[in-house]
Amino acid sequence: MPQGKPEYVPQDGMTTRERRNRPLVIVHTGPGKGKSTAAFGLALRAWNQGWPIGVFQFVKSAKWRIGEENALLALGRLHAETGEGGPVFWNKMGEGWSWIQRPGTEADHEADAREGWEQIKRDIAAETYRLYVLDEFTYPMKWGWVDVEDVVATLRDRPGSQHVVITGRDADPRLVEVADLVTEMGKVRHPMDRGQKGQKGIEW
Amino acid sequence: MPQGKPEYVPQDGMTTRERRNRPLVIVHTGPGKGKSTAAFGLALRAWNQGWPIGVFQFVKSAKWRIGEENALLALGRLHAETGEGGPVFWNKMGEGWSWIQRPGTEADHEADAREGWEQIKRDIAAETYRLYVLDEFTYPMKWGWVDVEDVVATLRDRPGSQHVVITGRDADPRLVEVADLVTEMGKVRHPMDRGQKGQKGIEW
Repeated sequence: MPQGKPEYVPQDGMTTRERRNRPLVIVHTGPGKGKSTAAFGLALRAWNQGWPIGVFQFVKSAKWRIGEENALLALGRLHAETGEGGPVFWNKMGEGWSWIQRPGTEADHEADAREGWEQIKRDIAAETYRLYVLDEFTYPMKWGWVDVEDVVATLRDRPGSQHVVITGRDADPRLVEVADLVTEMGKVRHPMDRGQKGQKGIEW
Repeated sequence: MPQGKPEYVPQDGMTTRERRNRPLVIVHTGPGKGKSTAAFGLALRAWNQGWPIGVFQFVKSAKWRIGEENALLALGRLHAETGEGGPVFWNKMGEGWSWIQRPGTEADHEADAREGWEQIKRDIAAETYRLYVLDEFTYPMKWGWVDVEDVVATLRDRPGSQHVVITGRDADPRLVEVADLVTEMGKVRHPMDRGQKGQKGIEW
């Protein structure tokens, strides 16, 4: 993206510096690839700033984010050892739990998702992290497991300077409304269209 | 994305394993955010697989990818020290060069871009890397500085198992055609619409 100037400067009483550092809610949605990948790419920038990063993974399969998890946790260890960058905390809700592929009733998954959201709320209230990656968090909202209005109010009223990135298809319009930055990843062509299966290093 | 099965299996004589590990050309294009960020997210997965990664940055501003650069180079150093993950090589063409903001004639930038592409061709021929991130490489193609047909032929005929990710707006249709995976990042809402300027940790 070209380094553009804003098309207008709002009369909101904020200084440029305040406006520049306003914490953001970012949503990556749409049917295409790259929603989560771009969120973890953002985590690289946050790490470089020394920000505490909290990843909350609403996983579908234990292996799917293993590359990002290993690399980001390696960066977190590097921080612990050398002080470079920031700390990284990786929260897998229900550890290995999956609502698509693994055994377990829907009620269990719903309870896991709710508990995960309650933990996120506690962390936001305590300003535990500077960047939150809520990976595939649109789905528990879509399925009614987590109340969208509660999410919107929590994000809108969050204290301090906490950036929140939420990924997943079918973002609720109310979530889109509260977001500062929304990107729709559209599928143009995908290898599965040609009979390609997922592969290590690319899909996980 | 759900872990789907391909809708059909092509009769191309490849085994499932061969097809699974077929190297990919991936394009992130469109006007939205996340094109480069998702490419650097892919690099996390590649690092975790121990793949040599070559980043070629057609930079607009020295600071814009500093977060990704510092974090990925930190992972590369970790590999050198502990053997964990893979090596990372970060190539800034013309080191600090920018065709938008810095002094210099257009001819210089064109020459830099061409030389960068020649280096990439040499690396692809030598199978230097397993993942190439050609960041904002659509622009020198768009501006006629690098020949699209040469890029397409080089990608199509590349040896071994080399994955190539190309980012930038306005990907040439011929590049889209040769790609295995194309994602269009669409802008839904951007903070600049509200008078927000870029900020550290988020934009770089």
